[in-house]
Amino acid sequence: FAKLSTVSVKLATMAKKLAKDDSRRVVHALKVGLAISLVSLLYYFKPLYDGFGTSTMWAIVTVIVVFEFSVGGTLGRGLNRVMATLLAGGLGFGTHYLASLGGDTGRPIILALFVFILASVSTFTRFFPKIKARYDYGLLILILTFCMVSLSGYRDEEIAKLALSRILTILIGCCVTLIVCIFVRPVWAGTDLHCLVANNIQSLALFFQGFGAEFFGLSQEGEVSNDDMQKYRTILNSKSNEESLTNLARWEPRHGKFRYRHPWKQYLKIGSLNRECAYRLELLNGYLKTNQFQMPSQQIHGQFKEECMKICSESSRGLRELALALRKMVLPLTAKSHIEKAKIAAENLKSHLEEWRFEEVNNAMEIVQVVSLASLLFDTICCIEKIVDSVQE
Amino acid sequence: FAKLSTVSVKLATMAKKLAKDDSRRVVHALKVGLAISLVSLLYYFKPLYDGFGTSTMWAIVTVIVVFEFSVGGTLGRGLNRVMATLLAGGLGFGTHYLASLGGDTGRPIILALFVFILASVSTFTRFFPKIKARYDYGLLILILTFCMVSLSGYRDEEIAKLALSRILTILIGCCVTLIVCIFVRPVWAGTDLHCLVANNIQSLALFFQGFGAEFFGLSQEGEVSNDDMQKYRTILNSKSNEESLTNLARWEPRHGKFRYRHPWKQYLKIGSLNRECAYRLELLNGYLKTNQFQMPSQQIHGQFKEECMKICSESSRGLRELALALRKMVLPLTAKSHIEKAKIAAENLKSHLEEWRFEEVNNAMEIVQVVSLASLLFDTICCIEKIVDSVQE
Repeated sequence: FAKLSTVSVKLATMAKKLAKDDSRRVVHALKVGLAISLVSLLYYFKPLYDGFGTSTMWAIVTVIVVFEFSVGGTLGRGLNRVMATLLAGGLGFGTHYLASLGGDTGRPIILALFVFILASVSTFTRFFPKIKARYDYGLLILILTFCMVSLSGYRDEEIAKLALSRILTILIGCCVTLIVCIFVRPVWAGTDLHCLVANNIQSLALFFQGFGAEFFGLSQEGEVSNDDMQKYRTILNSKSNEESLTNLARWEPRHGKFRYRHPWKQYLKIGSLNRECAYRLELLNGYLKTNQFQMPSQQIHGQFKEECMKICSESSRGLRELALALRKMVLPLTAKSHIEKAKIAAENLKSHLEEWRFEEVNNAMEIVQVVSLASLLFDTICCIEKIVDSVQE
Repeated sequence: FAKLSTVSVKLATMAKKLAKDDSRRVVHALKVGLAISLVSLLYYFKPLYDGFGTSTMWAIVTVIVVFEFSVGGTLGRGLNRVMATLLAGGLGFGTHYLASLGGDTGRPIILALFVFILASVSTFTRFFPKIKARYDYGLLILILTFCMVSLSGYRDEEIAKLALSRILTILIGCCVTLIVCIFVRPVWAGTDLHCLVANNIQSLALFFQGFGAEFFGLSQEGEVSNDDMQKYRTILNSKSNEESLTNLARWEPRHGKFRYRHPWKQYLKIGSLNRECAYRLELLNGYLKTNQFQMPSQQIHGQFKEECMKICSESSRGLRELALALRKMVLPLTAKSHIEKAKIAAENLKSHLEEWRFEEVNNAMEIVQVVSLASLLFDTICCIEKIVDSVQE
């Protein structure tokens, strides 16, 4: 019993955390409950139920399988379901008619052949990457409805009437789902994607802000916590998330500041540049923890500190400005100039290195860290520049 | 018309490529067709159909929605479906009974309340990450069946008989699907995961093999093509793929050399180390293309060539050995010693750098590339060492 109570306390804490992290989850759960309750009215009112009979069930089924977290997902599934049902219904009737020409022995053979061919071809079609991304569910429903219509027709002659009431109930289910999904606190995949990309740029900025200070052991005002600095790590594996959001966003109509054909692909491009930048940060982050090189002496540190700090702070400011501009959907005004300043600092660092009198160095290994740090920073700035250009498009 | 024919030619080429890349896709499509054909026999034989009536439909539905590409996926969905149906059936009957105590006015209110609560709670539960990974489909079916049983019970008094035949047909559907899936050319998610991880280690090895030669402009025997070298790039974004395969593999029974409780989590650990290594290769790869640093003079190149080449070739050999051992599921015998040799070469490189007389260098920038290359190589070897240790576990 004691074990049960600890488990339930744990569950409750987890549930609370999930709800707190994103309160839209609770809203979504309630929305699903609401949509199902609305559709179940079809059962409670006798005249409505008499009209549809057992097909009423399909309205409930439709709501449950179509309702997704984002508007894009719901629209995509709903459209897939309706289109596939209509198409498969037509094909099913055609097959039913063709098979009935075959006589008593030919009929099951023709039916079985068509079912086998359609099921195999549709299943194979689901492997096409582009189709999988957008029409996977539709193809599933296509096979399902086709089999149901053509096979049920073999036993049930009233199939036409049944099919009609089923399509009607599916339409009702879709409409109720869409209305609840769009008009009660909607969650737009497009907005989510937009925020995700802007937040990722912000995370890069936070890393740079913290990195300079931590590397040179300075304490700054408005210091960045270690947690904030590590936020960039989520970018490393953000690809699949960004891709699925992009696919969902394509289904969405005009909303807020987004047009119907918003250039969603551009977000994928910025996202992949963010990732390239994050790979470099992963290595820079390694320098903070590593003791595989000895720390350079204070003297060498001093020579490069100024430029390195400048690179970090200007990059951070530029990225922050960029994230803000993206969030507000305005053109970034000063981001470019911050990055230019960072580039100038990098050039200075480079010439500083060129003029370096090596007699000052006691141990060649001391410079290794500084030099590799500098080369990584150069590299990263090139990345950031590309991000700036992409965002401006 | 000409457009149509070019489109269809394009489609045919794509389909051919998909089939050629992985012939199991074609087999899978045919397997789905076969399973559906088998189940549709329930329609063709009158005595069978008379037993189940319209519930026969659910056998077809089950086959179509449960049949997945891998055995793990199919087993997972099948178990989810059967368990959720039974659980929801029980709950539905309970609610049906409770509601019938409420009298004519109380009944719909009690029903609506229960439906709303169950739908909302289950939908929220689907947000728990662990539950989402394994039981997402089960929860969907739970809501679906619960609503169908409790609501249909409101109109149809013969619900118990209907529910029984529906559960029977769902079981038949699941059995047919599993039999076809497991006994006709099965696709095991566990084997796929195993091969994926081994191939990824192999890709790392190929990169090292090619890198040394290309960087120092040597042409070697048995040279590695550029395509082979770039294979490591797929590792960068392999996380979600590995995670989903691991989730599927957990459902699978003993097969081939894999036990039921094979340590699948270990693969995730190796996978994430592979990715860390790949981030470093991404930067090494950058050195091959970049002209942001001037190429070091031949003289400097010469000094470090030997050690760098040794690091690359020994790393490559060690990784290759590791991949092979993993594929055959034996302990890698010599991998460790190859990596030890690579480490010794790295230590030599380090002391070489320490003894370096800087008067030989005309331009400090010349050493930047060598030094950062060396530091990246050190870093990468540490990564590889961790991979070796993980695989040996």
